[in-house]
Amino acid sequence: MSPKEEEPFEPLDILGALPEIVENRGRTIVIKYGGNAMVDERISLNVTRDIVFLKLTGMNPVVVHGGGPAISEHMKRVGIDPVFVDGQRRTDEGTFEIVEMVLCGKVNNALVKLINQEGVKAMGLSGKDVGLIEARKYRRKVKRNGRMEEIDLGQVGEVVRVDTEVIELLSRNDIIPVIAPIAVGEDNTDYNINADVLAGEVAAAVSADRLIYLTNVDGILRDGDDAGSLIPLIDAKEAKGLVGNVVTGGMIPKVESSLSALEQGVASAHIINGTTPHTLLKLLLTAEGAGTAIVADPNARKEGHEA
Amino acid sequence: MSPKEEEPFEPLDILGALPEIVENRGRTIVIKYGGNAMVDERISLNVTRDIVFLKLTGMNPVVVHGGGPAISEHMKRVGIDPVFVDGQRRTDEGTFEIVEMVLCGKVNNALVKLINQEGVKAMGLSGKDVGLIEARKYRRKVKRNGRMEEIDLGQVGEVVRVDTEVIELLSRNDIIPVIAPIAVGEDNTDYNINADVLAGEVAAAVSADRLIYLTNVDGILRDGDDAGSLIPLIDAKEAKGLVGNVVTGGMIPKVESSLSALEQGVASAHIINGTTPHTLLKLLLTAEGAGTAIVADPNARKEGHEA
Amino acid sequence: MSPKEEEPFEPLDILGALPEIVENRGRTIVIKYGGNAMVDERISLNVTRDIVFLKLTGMNPVVVHGGGPAISEHMKRVGIDPVFVDGQRRTDEGTFEIVEMVLCGKVNNALVKLINQEGVKAMGLSGKDVGLIEARKYRRKVKRNGRMEEIDLGQVGEVVRVDTEVIELLSRNDIIPVIAPIAVGEDNTDYNINADVLAGEVAAAVSADRLIYLTNVDGILRDGDDAGSLIPLIDAKEAKGLVGNVVTGGMIPKVESSLSALEQGVASAHIINGTTPHTLLKLLLTAEGAGTAIVADPNARKEGHEA
Amino acid sequence: MSPKEEEPFEPLDILGALPEIVENRGRTIVIKYGGNAMVDERISLNVTRDIVFLKLTGMNPVVVHGGGPAISEHMKRVGIDPVFVDGQRRTDEGTFEIVEMVLCGKVNNALVKLINQEGVKAMGLSGKDVGLIEARKYRRKVKRNGRMEEIDLGQVGEVVRVDTEVIELLSRNDIIPVIAPIAVGEDNTDYNINADVLAGEVAAAVSADRLIYLTNVDGILRDGDDAGSLIPLIDAKEAKGLVGNVVTGGMIPKVESSLSALEQGVASAHIINGTTPHTLLKLLLTAEGAGTAIVADPNARKEGHEA
Amino acid sequence: MSPKEEEPFEPLDILGALPEIVENRGRTIVIKYGGNAMVDERISLNVTRDIVFLKLTGMNPVVVHGGGPAISEHMKRVGIDPVFVDGQRRTDEGTFEIVEMVLCGKVNNALVKLINQEGVKAMGLSGKDVGLIEARKYRRKVKRNGRMEEIDLGQVGEVVRVDTEVIELLSRNDIIPVIAPIAVGEDNTDYNINADVLAGEVAAAVSADRLIYLTNVDGILRDGDDAGSLIPLIDAKEAKGLVGNVVTGGMIPKVESSLSALEQGVASAHIINGTTPHTLLKLLLTAEGAGTAIVADPNARKEGHEA
Amino acid sequence: MSPKEEEPFEPLDILGALPEIVENRGRTIVIKYGGNAMVDERISLNVTRDIVFLKLTGMNPVVVHGGGPAISEHMKRVGIDPVFVDGQRRTDEGTFEIVEMVLCGKVNNALVKLINQEGVKAMGLSGKDVGLIEARKYRRKVKRNGRMEEIDLGQVGEVVRVDTEVIELLSRNDIIPVIAPIAVGEDNTDYNINADVLAGEVAAAVSADRLIYLTNVDGILRDGDDAGSLIPLIDAKEAKGLVGNVVTGGMIPKVESSLSALEQGVASAHIINGTTPHTLLKLLLTAEGAGTAIVADPNARKEGHEA
Repeated sequence: MSPKEEEPFEPLDILGALPEIVENRGRTIVIKYGGNAMVDERISLNVTRDIVFLKLTGMNPVVVHGGGPAISEHMKRVGIDPVFVDGQRRTDEGTFEIVEMVLCGKVNNALVKLINQEGVKAMGLSGKDVGLIEARKYRRKVKRNGRMEEIDLGQVGEVVRVDTEVIELLSRNDIIPVIAPIAVGEDNTDYNINADVLAGEVAAAVSADRLIYLTNVDGILRDGDDAGSLIPLIDAKEAKGLVGNVVTGGMIPKVESSLSALEQGVASAHIINGTTPHTLLKLLLTAEGAGTAIVADPNARKEGHEA
Repeated sequence: MSPKEEEPFEPLDILGALPEIVENRGRTIVIKYGGNAMVDERISLNVTRDIVFLKLTGMNPVVVHGGGPAISEHMKRVGIDPVFVDGQRRTDEGTFEIVEMVLCGKVNNALVKLINQEGVKAMGLSGKDVGLIEARKYRRKVKRNGRMEEIDLGQVGEVVRVDTEVIELLSRNDIIPVIAPIAVGEDNTDYNINADVLAGEVAAAVSADRLIYLTNVDGILRDGDDAGSLIPLIDAKEAKGLVGNVVTGGMIPKVESSLSALEQGVASAHIINGTTPHTLLKLLLTAEGAGTAIVADPNARKEGHEA
Repeated sequence: MSPKEEEPFEPLDILGALPEIVENRGRTIVIKYGGNAMVDERISLNVTRDIVFLKLTGMNPVVVHGGGPAISEHMKRVGIDPVFVDGQRRTDEGTFEIVEMVLCGKVNNALVKLINQEGVKAMGLSGKDVGLIEARKYRRKVKRNGRMEEIDLGQVGEVVRVDTEVIELLSRNDIIPVIAPIAVGEDNTDYNINADVLAGEVAAAVSADRLIYLTNVDGILRDGDDAGSLIPLIDAKEAKGLVGNVVTGGMIPKVESSLSALEQGVASAHIINGTTPHTLLKLLLTAEGAGTAIVADPNARKEGHEA
Repeated sequence: MSPKEEEPFEPLDILGALPEIVENRGRTIVIKYGGNAMVDERISLNVTRDIVFLKLTGMNPVVVHGGGPAISEHMKRVGIDPVFVDGQRRTDEGTFEIVEMVLCGKVNNALVKLINQEGVKAMGLSGKDVGLIEARKYRRKVKRNGRMEEIDLGQVGEVVRVDTEVIELLSRNDIIPVIAPIAVGEDNTDYNINADVLAGEVAAAVSADRLIYLTNVDGILRDGDDAGSLIPLIDAKEAKGLVGNVVTGGMIPKVESSLSALEQGVASAHIINGTTPHTLLKLLLTAEGAGTAIVADPNARKEGHEA
Repeated sequence: MSPKEEEPFEPLDILGALPEIVENRGRTIVIKYGGNAMVDERISLNVTRDIVFLKLTGMNPVVVHGGGPAISEHMKRVGIDPVFVDGQRRTDEGTFEIVEMVLCGKVNNALVKLINQEGVKAMGLSGKDVGLIEARKYRRKVKRNGRMEEIDLGQVGEVVRVDTEVIELLSRNDIIPVIAPIAVGEDNTDYNINADVLAGEVAAAVSADRLIYLTNVDGILRDGDDAGSLIPLIDAKEAKGLVGNVVTGGMIPKVESSLSALEQGVASAHIINGTTPHTLLKLLLTAEGAGTAIVADPNARKEGHEA
Repeated sequence: MSPKEEEPFEPLDILGALPEIVENRGRTIVIKYGGNAMVDERISLNVTRDIVFLKLTGMNPVVVHGGGPAISEHMKRVGIDPVFVDGQRRTDEGTFEIVEMVLCGKVNNALVKLINQEGVKAMGLSGKDVGLIEARKYRRKVKRNGRMEEIDLGQVGEVVRVDTEVIELLSRNDIIPVIAPIAVGEDNTDYNINADVLAGEVAAAVSADRLIYLTNVDGILRDGDDAGSLIPLIDAKEAKGLVGNVVTGGMIPKVESSLSALEQGVASAHIINGTTPHTLLKLLLTAEGAGTAIVADPNARKEGHEA
């Protein structure tokens, strides 16, 4: 039985979306896909098909993925206990080895295979390929006992430079790049990069039209307990103001990376629910939109739910 | 201290090799690199530099690698015992997971990083990327109790088709493809492929000029105990005759894949010692040659040691 | 009120059609559109959107149109009585002037404008543009009083040669060619060409994958009064046998041109109902198919309604 | 008997014109051809050959045509009386239908056919093709009873935007674009455009080197009754001063469009006699020049008759 | 005073030649220019302009030149006596030095400069450039005292191979190649090549449409004393029969090279009078033709004077 | 016996130079080669091989040569006495004829042949080819009897413009341009150009990365008698100060042209000893460097001998 039979939902009016398809042709969109949204096979299939449809109608999707749960699981198999500091994985040498193997040799390959199965070519990349991503040690400072102190997270890195040449080469040749968040420093140290942050940096580097985070929530809620409090559209200034109160936990790097990407010219950033079928298509191909849109200037682009 | 200082050897007369460089420009060579030759860092560096030099002077090297020792080591870490049947790894689902993670997330990445460090771009690929390699279940038959019986090796595959388009795209764009021996079947089963065999199939598919196996022996010896019995040049027919007696163990897939590649139009196959510094350059850039050359027709190409 | 609201029909499952979209990418399809199917604005809009969707997902539609009713109407305005001989318009000089003005200056322009409005570029062409279609006088012979006699139809022509260069230039540049059935002879005489016949000749010349006739009937019916007697799939040999009995009137040039196109390498020809919404998409993007498919060899392509 | 025999005139010294040919290679010239100059077949043939010669020696001619007399004639056939307001055709819906049919389906086709007969490819276009010309309603105001009043001319439009992409595509592919003055508004209304005005707008849009009006007079005469009073060269400022006195009637849109094109960077505009054999070649390939040249800065380009 | 003023001749009807220009576009013609036709400055200018006109209208002229008189003159200046054996220059080392300097450093440069002055780019080449022409020693045998004996002509060579790549590169980039008859052997010996022979070999190598010899006679005369006995058109077989009787002296290598070129696929060879103004244009652009045309099959191409 | 056997020198560690090769790929370097460095065959061979190696590893060498000694020698053969004024050859018409023949027909050809023999294509050019170099009369003024006086050097020219298009065309097509210092004036006068000066102008025109003078001294010596006083690195300002005292004779045009090239954006200029084997490679591929480097800003590029 095919997933479609199981999961009846209102089919999209694709022919009503011709103007949107035409408008989006040739545009690059960076899609961060990961976390819990990746666990369920049916969800993965739905997301994959959306991405393939976007490629087939002329957009250039670039996928960045994470893989936290799979990493932690494999670490336990080899007897290493995951340690997190404020949501970031402390990455010593032994941990990095596992991180890299799981991201590049398991999660990335699986995603690439899924896309290929739908008939569109995908290529897995990490920051090591063609020197795609240069990083440096991420120096996290926290206040302790009244003064700033650096916490050593090991091989956790921050992005210095993304070499977009190969991304464009692949896109031009109808191949979807799928990027694992691994990078190398100038001193040849390997680094583990936060995938949310990497997605923002890639979007800025390739001059993407949109940066889209596929999460397992509907977007930013003014009141975390009230699904009806979803913020459909917000400008950068206001979004910045929400960080720390409305925007918390794993939402913080998404919003901060969105703001950084907007500053570097990306037209809009979006936080949408990847577990709802075809949210990607709803966002890109309908007037209705989906999730929370963050824009630099709300007059320039009106998206998200209609008010 | 740089490796060069430690390891003085007679420098190559590169300017004397201009005619060889000119003659080889634009040619594709497939280099199988793996096994023990990969373990030593100094050796890896030497091999990498040779490959980079070949690329910089206009050849198109394509690298295929194995990774047996690293796989077995990691399997032990997660508590799986490697099982080999006549030199081939029995690959059940749990084993395949480790095989893929180690090959794609560790060995491949390491090799790619080494090449990038020398200033030439390399891109890691597995057969999953862009559907590069299609495989099917390898059905090994052995005689038991007087009749042929199939041994189930699990997800061990044989190559059905290599899609050369992306290999050529990368080569044309000055990127060295580095290929891990993982493939997918038409029914979406994942397969583990013998890297020696894959190298031969890739060489045939890309119409390589040469197929080169970097091993840790000097070539084919008529008498395994006598280094002086190296066979510098041999034709396909004679090579076939040696399989089973002079050619044994891990040398068998190399010689058989060489013969298959020669039949499909590769001009020559070579078994050389990757642990000796710059054997690759000696083979390609000097009249002297290196290791054992296997050719379809000995009159068409005279290589290997001068008689 | 948008047409969609008025005309509720089961929306197509486009994402279920990804394999069909992938398979059809890059293929050329020649669509004959005309007659009564062109009169209704809503139908025109639906057909246009289907064509635009096919272009947006990577196919190369080439449109050939007729315009009989509009021609006759304008002839009456200027006081010329249309004369038909066995369904073909007798075309004297005065008639030709009207034929050309209506086809090129009215019908063609209208169709081009409709496509452009959907956001995809279309270019109107006649056989006069860049010498696209060379024709010669069509010499029709009928039996009269026991012997063959030629009926002079005036400037009615038959196709000698289609110059595909400009069609391919436009397709490559994302412009849909829309062709009016006017042509020029080697002696510079202007000719009026039967649009059904022209569609077949264009399909053969551009090595189209499919030739599709949009008509106002569901396909070929074994029994003209019984909609349930639709023939979903038929091979060339059998189709030839039906001409004159089951296939009559305006269906004859469609079937004969289909047979001629199949002989010249077109994979399949289709007669479908252009007045039913989205029959084009159903034909091309669903397993179900639509109308009557004529194929050279029924084993090579199975299409039409599922048995 | 060929036209050349009938019409002996001093043959051009083409080889003496090599420097002019070299200098003009690759330049775009927009030629407005129409009105009475189009009626005579011999004249048409001469003009066509000149245009073909220019193309064959490397220039990029772009032709814009009118068709007033043929339109009026056909309107009378269908019983509509042409109405002109200050030289502009009042264009109601019924009139527009005739205008479009005659321009696109008769005059344009005829011109395209003539060029093709000389061995160079031409393609007929209207503003509807690929959305070539966007227009808006032309709002003409006249003073009546002491105050400005708008006269409704119906579907008479003014140019908003010319999409030069397809013009350049055709030129690059050795096809001469022949443009009929029909356009579409953003609201999908069809418009009839003054061909003189359109020629100027096209020249500006494609950054033409020259804009040339082929008329049936020798140029601008200071004294309309004295052929000897031809103004060979005039600057923009002085030309503006002549409008209304020396420049009257149909010459006004030509001069005003010339001035507008000059302001937008066209190097020179020319009003020459299309009924004199080979005036186009005389203008472009001889030091002598032809007709009246209007230039922004008389020091930058010295053309027209030698003083 | 310009040459045109001095030399009134019936101007060519270039516009009457449009069909010929169209037909010849993109064709390659090899023009041998040399001997006495090069001495007179006015003649050189006329020939140059013809070549430039051909290039400007889309043909690809390739020029091969000789330089006998200038070589002999310079040899005398340095005190070497020219020695000819049956019309071929005995070329010892001292002679070759002069031959090369005069051909490459004087005659070639002069011709290149003349073409450049007319506004079209020309590039001088010898067989040494990019290894354009490979030669070997020409071994001439004559009968002496009843037996064949080889006469040593020194560094006189015959063509082994013409590398057409650079000729095509230049032609494609609108640069006329001008080739001096110097070549190099596989053993690096320099050779002097007969320019008539080289022209034929170049024509064959570049698949020229025509090979044209510009001489100082009107063509092949049946009776050398009777200008009226010019042979306008002759087939290869008949031409071969004339060698030795009607065809003598310097005409022999021209005719023999023509026959060789025709065998290798050149459509026609022509011997015309370069001292008559614009014979090249008359040959290529008029029905009348010029000189003697040699064709493989007289039915395939009818040229030369009309019968 | 090959030159290598005769001339043992410390072989270069080419593999240690991979970073330099990578860094230099795609860069253009202009090499002035001439004077005494050209006389010795062994030296020429060494220099040629270095240039070929640079091309094979991805650099774009452009060679400019002189030829003074060969010119003077040939002038004497034809009985003309060379006259020099402050190191510049007085060039009357008779002298120019010899200059051109020797440079283009002897020296240039010889250099081109040498490079071709090593398997890389070279093309000889003079400023006459495709109008490569435009010059004007060089007006030298000297102080005599207390006032400035112009000395007439005849056809000695200075560079007005270098047309880089053909140089880039050749480089892109893997052909090394070899340029003889001959040029033409706007008035068609031929000019003899100082090769040192031309090299500087060519370097500036093609935006070369480096300008390299191959001479027969080691570089600029602070004390002409003390080889140990070599200046390895100097900035433009300081170099200017040395002209007239430390920099004298033939070194003056090299240094002055270097300064001019640096001002026009060339990154560094070098004066090295072409008679020492492989100085070119030492300069470009080792940290050690060679000769004297002149840079605009010593902080921007550190080259020459290590301090």
